[in-house]
Amino acid sequence: MGRVTARRRATRLTVATATQRAETLAVEEPLEIRLHGSPLTITMRTPGADVELAQGFLLTEGVIGGRDDLLAARYCQGDGENGHNTYNVLDVTLAPDVPMPGADVRRNFYTTSSCGICGKASLDAVRTISRHCPGDDPTAVTPDSLLALPGRLRSAQRVFASTGGLHAAGLFSAAGDLLVVREDIGRHNAVDKVIGWALEYGRIPLSGSVLMVSGRASFELTQKAVMAGIPIMAAVSAPSSLAVDLAAQSGLTLVGFLREDSMNVYSRPDRITR
Amino acid sequence: MGRVTARRRATRLTVATATQRAETLAVEEPLEIRLHGSPLTITMRTPGADVELAQGFLLTEGVIGGRDDLLAARYCQGDGENGHNTYNVLDVTLAPDVPMPGADVRRNFYTTSSCGICGKASLDAVRTISRHCPGDDPTAVTPDSLLALPGRLRSAQRVFASTGGLHAAGLFSAAGDLLVVREDIGRHNAVDKVIGWALEYGRIPLSGSVLMVSGRASFELTQKAVMAGIPIMAAVSAPSSLAVDLAAQSGLTLVGFLREDSMNVYSRPDRITR
Repeated sequence: MGRVTARRRATRLTVATATQRAETLAVEEPLEIRLHGSPLTITMRTPGADVELAQGFLLTEGVIGGRDDLLAARYCQGDGENGHNTYNVLDVTLAPDVPMPGADVRRNFYTTSSCGICGKASLDAVRTISRHCPGDDPTAVTPDSLLALPGRLRSAQRVFASTGGLHAAGLFSAAGDLLVVREDIGRHNAVDKVIGWALEYGRIPLSGSVLMVSGRASFELTQKAVMAGIPIMAAVSAPSSLAVDLAAQSGLTLVGFLREDSMNVYSRPDRITR
Repeated sequence: MGRVTARRRATRLTVATATQRAETLAVEEPLEIRLHGSPLTITMRTPGADVELAQGFLLTEGVIGGRDDLLAARYCQGDGENGHNTYNVLDVTLAPDVPMPGADVRRNFYTTSSCGICGKASLDAVRTISRHCPGDDPTAVTPDSLLALPGRLRSAQRVFASTGGLHAAGLFSAAGDLLVVREDIGRHNAVDKVIGWALEYGRIPLSGSVLMVSGRASFELTQKAVMAGIPIMAAVSAPSSLAVDLAAQSGLTLVGFLREDSMNVYSRPDRITR
């Protein structure tokens, strides 16, 4: 089974000294997700919670809408170099009535058939595909409960403390209680894992919840929140222009620069009650 | 033409106050790269230096080996919604003797045809495809010149100062002089832009140079450095396990946690002379 951290020898140089020591690193390995035996996508990820990752990916790309659309997910028993299972290939079986997606599902969100590809086409694609848009979700939170989230996420990040190299995504209740946290070398994978966890426990759409991510809020992460029906998403750092546009169009409350004593609210501030 | 920053209205909440103001955000827009009119890939990027981005992507994915493999790159004249060019589709024409790549060039680096996909397969793929492996590059740098790079990169980052949302990649000489800096919402795009700039000016392979990136060192970024023949790569934050493995195998000097007074050297420390 894949490990989350690995040790590698490094030379530590300061202005005055050079010392050799073993450093703990975040593990990065490819995961291939297959549908009925056919390769669908490959992502570089930190091993662990791979079934959650696949489930979250399939939901946020619009391939499935809920737990019932999945029959099984299992590591491919094919052999690595010396006959061992690498645990890097996951084969997913969809329910009989779920249509197979196109060859590259990620393209759905980015492109149209015309030459005039633009941000607006990406926004429209999410609106067309999403089954759980959060626009009507009546969830409300207080500023205080949001301001507490960065500290709670950080204290739940176990691997980061040892490697300094992992992103985290945490799912919280409206009252600020932590439901689940997942870490990964890729921010989008951490979010997929959290959403895949929710899918496993029948919590999709994720109404009444807050998604907190450790870095910036990109279009891709915002898309994932909208696809899972999350009403409030908060990021430690800045959002992009397209993330804000998607949040505004989808009725997602998007919070950026969430620090200990302040935050910026870019859309639907009405869900934050004072 | 695409803008690099955009303004959006936001509500700033502190523990005590709520104020409305316009915030400057990093622009995120899709760029579709086409080869001879056929879609090759789509990346979410910050507009600007798009030809460099396409050139760097094609080089680091192994489609081209140098400037002579390219005939032209131009924005597709197709129309956006109201007849305007979106400047988000770039059509590249290869020289007649350059073979067209497969449908999804990114898959080359991540997968093999067997079920036993693993990090080792990714490493082997880079070694097979790279034409400019830096293993024999005799470049040497002093610790002092490396320690000066984070500050030089930061002061060259113009957009970050206003948005807090952009990654940067900078190319430096062995003496520490800045050759070029590029910023983007995606770290991999910033690196592609820098390498595409070098391609334009006939500097591939990039022997004698140092690549500095603003965040972590992932497999993908390390792969790009190796593909461009860069002998030394430095990151402000942590590398992943697979990045270190690739650097060691390819003869790249990989530096992590490069701060004002210290750094970790994960491979080929012999290029750093005291």
